[in-house]
Amino acid sequence: MLLLSNHHRHRSSLLPLLRLLHHRHRSNQHFSTLSHPPLRPLDVPLSQPTYMIWSSNTSLGKTLVSTGLSSSFLLSASSSSTSLSLFPSKKFLYLKPIQTGFPSDSDSRFLFNKLSSLSLRRQARPSLSLSDSVIYSSVSAAKSVLSDKLQAQAKEFGSGMYNLNIREVNENSGGGEAVSELVCKTLFAWEEAVSPHLAAERESGVVGDSEVLEMLDKCLREGLKSDRERMEVLCVVETAGGVASPGPSGSLQCDLYRRVIVCRDSNSNFVIIMFSEEVRPFRFPGILIGDGRLGGISGTISAYESLKLRGYDVVAVVFEDHGLVNEVPLMSYLRNRVPVLVLPPIPQDSSNDLMEWFDASHNVFNSLKDIMLSAHSKRIQRLHDMAKRAGEVFWWPFTQHGLVPEETVTIIDSRCGENFSVYKGQDIESITQQFDACASWWTQGPDAALQVTLSQMTSFVIEILWFQTELARDMGYTAARFGHVMFPENVYEPALECAELLLDGVGKGWASRAYFSDNGSTAIEIALKMAFRKFSCDHGILLDFLNNNTAERVIKLKVLALKGSYHGDTLGAMEAQAPSSYTGFLQQPWYTGRGLFLDPPRVFMCNSKWDLSLPEWLHAKIVKLQDMIIHAAGGMHMIDPLFQRILVNECRNRKIPVIFDEVFTGFWRLGAETAADMLGCVPDIACFGKLLTGGVIPLAVTLATDAVFDSFVGDSKLKALLHGHSYSAHAMGCAAAAKSIKWFKDPQTNVNIISEQKLLRELWDLELVQQISSHPAIRRMVTLGTVCALELQAEGCNAGYGSLYASSLLRKLREDGVYMRPLGHVIYLMCGPCTSPELCRQLLIKLHRGLEDFNRVEEKVRAC
Amino acid sequence: MLLLSNHHRHRSSLLPLLRLLHHRHRSNQHFSTLSHPPLRPLDVPLSQPTYMIWSSNTSLGKTLVSTGLSSSFLLSASSSSTSLSLFPSKKFLYLKPIQTGFPSDSDSRFLFNKLSSLSLRRQARPSLSLSDSVIYSSVSAAKSVLSDKLQAQAKEFGSGMYNLNIREVNENSGGGEAVSELVCKTLFAWEEAVSPHLAAERESGVVGDSEVLEMLDKCLREGLKSDRERMEVLCVVETAGGVASPGPSGSLQCDLYRRVIVCRDSNSNFVIIMFSEEVRPFRFPGILIGDGRLGGISGTISAYESLKLRGYDVVAVVFEDHGLVNEVPLMSYLRNRVPVLVLPPIPQDSSNDLMEWFDASHNVFNSLKDIMLSAHSKRIQRLHDMAKRAGEVFWWPFTQHGLVPEETVTIIDSRCGENFSVYKGQDIESITQQFDACASWWTQGPDAALQVTLSQMTSFVIEILWFQTELARDMGYTAARFGHVMFPENVYEPALECAELLLDGVGKGWASRAYFSDNGSTAIEIALKMAFRKFSCDHGILLDFLNNNTAERVIKLKVLALKGSYHGDTLGAMEAQAPSSYTGFLQQPWYTGRGLFLDPPRVFMCNSKWDLSLPEWLHAKIVKLQDMIIHAAGGMHMIDPLFQRILVNECRNRKIPVIFDEVFTGFWRLGAETAADMLGCVPDIACFGKLLTGGVIPLAVTLATDAVFDSFVGDSKLKALLHGHSYSAHAMGCAAAAKSIKWFKDPQTNVNIISEQKLLRELWDLELVQQISSHPAIRRMVTLGTVCALELQAEGCNAGYGSLYASSLLRKLREDGVYMRPLGHVIYLMCGPCTSPELCRQLLIKLHRGLEDFNRVEEKVRAC
Repeated sequence: MLLLSNHHRHRSSLLPLLRLLHHRHRSNQHFSTLSHPPLRPLDVPLSQPTYMIWSSNTSLGKTLVSTGLSSSFLLSASSSSTSLSLFPSKKFLYLKPIQTGFPSDSDSRFLFNKLSSLSLRRQARPSLSLSDSVIYSSVSAAKSVLSDKLQAQAKEFGSGMYNLNIREVNENSGGGEAVSELVCKTLFAWEEAVSPHLAAERESGVVGDSEVLEMLDKCLREGLKSDRERMEVLCVVETAGGVASPGPSGSLQCDLYRRVIVCRDSNSNFVIIMFSEEVRPFRFPGILIGDGRLGGISGTISAYESLKLRGYDVVAVVFEDHGLVNEVPLMSYLRNRVPVLVLPPIPQDSSNDLMEWFDASHNVFNSLKDIMLSAHSKRIQRLHDMAKRAGEVFWWPFTQHGLVPEETVTIIDSRCGENFSVYKGQDIESITQQFDACASWWTQGPDAALQVTLSQMTSFVIEILWFQTELARDMGYTAARFGHVMFPENVYEPALECAELLLDGVGKGWASRAYFSDNGSTAIEIALKMAFRKFSCDHGILLDFLNNNTAERVIKLKVLALKGSYHGDTLGAMEAQAPSSYTGFLQQPWYTGRGLFLDPPRVFMCNSKWDLSLPEWLHAKIVKLQDMIIHAAGGMHMIDPLFQRILVNECRNRKIPVIFDEVFTGFWRLGAETAADMLGCVPDIACFGKLLTGGVIPLAVTLATDAVFDSFVGDSKLKALLHGHSYSAHAMGCAAAAKSIKWFKDPQTNVNIISEQKLLRELWDLELVQQISSHPAIRRMVTLGTVCALELQAEGCNAGYGSLYASSLLRKLREDGVYMRPLGHVIYLMCGPCTSPELCRQLLIKLHRGLEDFNRVEEKVRAC
Repeated sequence: MLLLSNHHRHRSSLLPLLRLLHHRHRSNQHFSTLSHPPLRPLDVPLSQPTYMIWSSNTSLGKTLVSTGLSSSFLLSASSSSTSLSLFPSKKFLYLKPIQTGFPSDSDSRFLFNKLSSLSLRRQARPSLSLSDSVIYSSVSAAKSVLSDKLQAQAKEFGSGMYNLNIREVNENSGGGEAVSELVCKTLFAWEEAVSPHLAAERESGVVGDSEVLEMLDKCLREGLKSDRERMEVLCVVETAGGVASPGPSGSLQCDLYRRVIVCRDSNSNFVIIMFSEEVRPFRFPGILIGDGRLGGISGTISAYESLKLRGYDVVAVVFEDHGLVNEVPLMSYLRNRVPVLVLPPIPQDSSNDLMEWFDASHNVFNSLKDIMLSAHSKRIQRLHDMAKRAGEVFWWPFTQHGLVPEETVTIIDSRCGENFSVYKGQDIESITQQFDACASWWTQGPDAALQVTLSQMTSFVIEILWFQTELARDMGYTAARFGHVMFPENVYEPALECAELLLDGVGKGWASRAYFSDNGSTAIEIALKMAFRKFSCDHGILLDFLNNNTAERVIKLKVLALKGSYHGDTLGAMEAQAPSSYTGFLQQPWYTGRGLFLDPPRVFMCNSKWDLSLPEWLHAKIVKLQDMIIHAAGGMHMIDPLFQRILVNECRNRKIPVIFDEVFTGFWRLGAETAADMLGCVPDIACFGKLLTGGVIPLAVTLATDAVFDSFVGDSKLKALLHGHSYSAHAMGCAAAAKSIKWFKDPQTNVNIISEQKLLRELWDLELVQQISSHPAIRRMVTLGTVCALELQAEGCNAGYGSLYASSLLRKLREDGVYMRPLGHVIYLMCGPCTSPELCRQLLIKLHRGLEDFNRVEEKVRAC
């Protein structure tokens, strides 16, 4: 039975999100008149097992495996011990997002037909209802299936995809009341039997990745709802071609199903650059259909590796036997950790109805189904237990374990660009999205931007630049090529490239040497040792010491530093900070505070206006508010840049070496590649970390001038800087840094770069920022580059680093898909150097909404 | 012309290296009567460009590409500006290591024949001599080509491979004196046209990876020698099947050509476990033959990724056009950084002689050849410049730059297991091998061991466990799945697995919490903060402090530590060390040494006998020499374990928290998983790093007891341990650690594990150690677990950390393929937990040889 329903021109719900890039984007819309509301985080349900069916090449029998699985699932007696009956109510959901060669090829129809036959053949089974539908197709594919009348209508709509919505149902199988269901759906179909990207182009029916995933998401939600209580559901999503075959947009399928990235501006018929405003983590586990032919071992292993390189899990490998015992090397490669199943040879005669083959394959499909169901249960169980187990073995940094109940622990299944994929075990089990608004301790600069270029070779080609995937491949390559190799007196490619990029970038114009270490604290300890030596040289202390060896206990060297600053948690870094919550006897009894700590003037926004607070000791005139540098961990204070510049000049006049701690500020955090760019003066020594590697791996570097370096050169090893860590300049860190440094500053990969690579465009909507800064719950606000920080109005024990005042606000925001962490009563949103202003705008809107709720609750509390 | 030379039974030169494992191996051979001398490091010449020809599947035209390249190289006018004539003397070397389907299929013969024809066709070229030879074949393949008489002889030799040595030559091409050469060689051939591992098994002609590589090495050396001055040479090594197709031993080819690993015991016909005594780094750059068919984009990309995941470089992708414009998505994927070339469709008619196709492909092959020659030149130039550039931008830790001339800088092209691949620019440019005998600052534990199991499914299956490849794949997967995600109050799989493994392993029986950081120094700083709090709690100091807030400046907490110890370079770690070269005013003026530093009794070997040196203050009886712990950076001193155990007990009696610094000693460095296992007592807190991740990436951890943890639990965040680093518990580090912890302790992956996973077998040959300890150049010697350390006899300025006394010895050892670094006049050999005793024995022999030379030179110096 063929059912035809209405078909209308496909309207992309993502059109409003499209924007032309390479143009600075500033929203002029007023807060209250948003053209599109913030996107809701989308959940991927985990309640029912859902698997991707991947294949190492085309025509290896993906659909036969899907069919066999459906038969095993729907037509076999249940082996589940929890089932009440031998044949409990079941649903098998088969989704084919992308189909070419349609309508002569239709994998969903194949499955539908075969299962109808199998159901009749195995009569002892419960009755079954089956359906097959096709949702969208290209015009030319639609013409082949539509009546003349509808064809005429179709022409009216011009090019594009059609909402075909044809549906075929079969209710008669097995007789009696249908207790089980087979639902087959083809989402998008094209006529030509070529790669989807070619078919889409040739048939003028290009579909963006986001459209594919949106439709897939919709079908999954509808399909996974079980209509009956205790209904068991198994869902498979069958890909097209090989794991890295392009989808309709040109994205490789193994990338496409990881998240939404590109869409088409159907007005201009131009594929344009777009930010990933929406991200959905379809990191479903998969089955890999391998290749049993000559050469098939290689293809199967390589396909498996491509999936692993994108963070997918594969629970089983299946392939057709060609008499070459390919399972032996495959099992060896997989070390028996992933089961390998072999299907009997498939009859080549096209008239064969395959019924006997399905009978012969029955046990294999039963095993495969059991593997899938069991892997799913184990995964859910593991996710479910993780919070409890974490609470038993972890000692989290900066965390009062007494204040972390199990239910508040965040279970992170994966990271996708700027988002965490978080397991939710309450109500319905699902994986949901949270924007990592603390940039995982200010380290992250993942890919939010993508580029699409018009090719000269075909009408278009989509060049998707995905930082996380490329970085992962680089990490694999570097680990395989170098692992880690010792650094001193050696040179290897990633370290050399990284050092040269640093000196030509953040160190340009002043630095000539790169000293690598592992994190901000160690970079600071190294910087201090450099500065002490330089100071000792410049002031004759070293000479005195070398001459009479008495200076050691006589000269007391101190740092000149700012109050409220934070440079890390090792003792040397702590000694260079003014006393704070981090430095007291409770934390480190050895701390003495070896510095002169100045209270600097601070800059902030309050009630929509920028303001400057002067410390008592300083009676200065108001400075021009053009550039500001931030004290991050000290509470996100923005220090007056003029003050800092004068301080640098005064130090230089007195031959006091100047260290810039750029661990937080470096690599575009504040909108320029370095804070030095914004201050308009350069240091003698500077420390970098965090964003240095793009946020993937620890690495830090201390840069220094030639003059600093020279104070350690001599003829004795004892005069050298004797400081090092095991993994100094480790290859993977340097490779990640080299890639990130280039990525962030290149307008081809970071569309936020403006004005000849010197600045990021404005990311935070000024109007929204002003509105929030005027909110009664806010005391002060600061936005700069990728940072937007707020100090809440808080008194007494509600204020300060130890305060839990912001907790309820942050809980609310997490529910709204924004993951934030407080610094006491100071909270912040942080994005990456490539994040789109639109996404930042949505974060601000959510923040504002959160503050409204927060204020209502607090007012009630105050009223009590 | 067919030439047949002598054929005799193939004798594996590796047989003497074979040994049965799972049995403790102790060499009983005397030093002077070695059955086999230490292996010489093998150089891979770089003087001439050598490329691997890879393919994403079988039958994609690898040999056509090789042929086209040979034609372009030998038969075209030279475009090189340095050539003196239009047709300089040239040699094209084509090596086919593995051929199945022989003799009906022979890729080297195909190339030989086609080039003969092409040479005649393009008459204007210089005269050419051509040859094709086949070196070894299986018996059945040999029978097809040998005469009856020789066949009869062949039978006599039973199963195995035959030294076929057939050679066909053609001197007539082009006329006149031959100035150019084509040399084609098939190294090993089997008759059946199936995967080499199957053919090898079915024809009883299994060849080990080492045999393939040894023969390849030999042919390369012979072939790359240019017979004439200024002769240009281009070499291609054509693989069989796809990139991950198994070779004759079952190893995947992409693994096989990375190094030597397995060989066969042909006496027993059993494939047995063997250590990789020899390692040769055939990391040649490659050309990837892609797939232009439907599905070919996916296969090509996946094959490319499998090569990258093994550290290979690919300089170009080539494929046959099938009208599907596959180059567009491929170029997009490769971001135009790797050129993609398209060949015209290959005629399917088998009678076609392809001459016209080669003509039509001429330009493509010319471009490909130019790309290969240019990439080679750039690579050599880059390698050549690296030392100089490194000297200009690096600031190496622990290095006096004034003492590092450019020519002493080691240029590391890659790491392969325990070996560096080092570029040599002197004399002949080459890549040579150096055993990383300092374990890259004591971090390395790479795979030296492999396992081969007999399968129940076929007569044998070789299961090669290669740590570096598996770890690289895990790194790629983890970077793709997680990148880095924030740790506090969160949980994700790698961190949880790692923490659970730590508490169930090195922390078993005492630790209940894992606190992650980045390196040994930070782990120590965290341990100190933990210990201070615990001590303050236990002794009422904390209560006093909280009550009257005066304790802060009154109580002076000190550590009790050992003289000569080293715990890292950050200030807190330094403060816990006794004064040394690292702590003086020259290095860190803030250092005061906040401890009571005991001079411990030390254990060492001298003149073949173990000895104990007692400090003056201690009048103790001699202790039993069963276990010892080492002070590493302090000069590799082995401290009396009884002394340490007593110290621990005394501290415990006085409620002084005990910290074990296991950064160096942890994870089998000393032969047990932890030093605690050897001391027979447990700490309250312990620090781990270095080997924790298997040596790939920085990660450290501080483990603590529940009692320590509890002293930070309360209702205030300020009471929590406020110490953290950006990448705390980063996913890649934890994933690497989880893999390494399991790998090292599992007898299936580490054959050195004996006595129920509690100990490593003895790695250092006792007899050799005694011999070296009696050497006149040696003052003391210590061997334990993976460490073998020596103190040279040195007086005055030759002694101490700043001494350069050992330089000439170490230079000599580097020439001998052993990379060592001194700690002043103390030197050491260090292997990994999986290194074979045989390899250690060879290191000792080389060391002994080096000491002999060193002594002769020193005696001369003294005589002057």
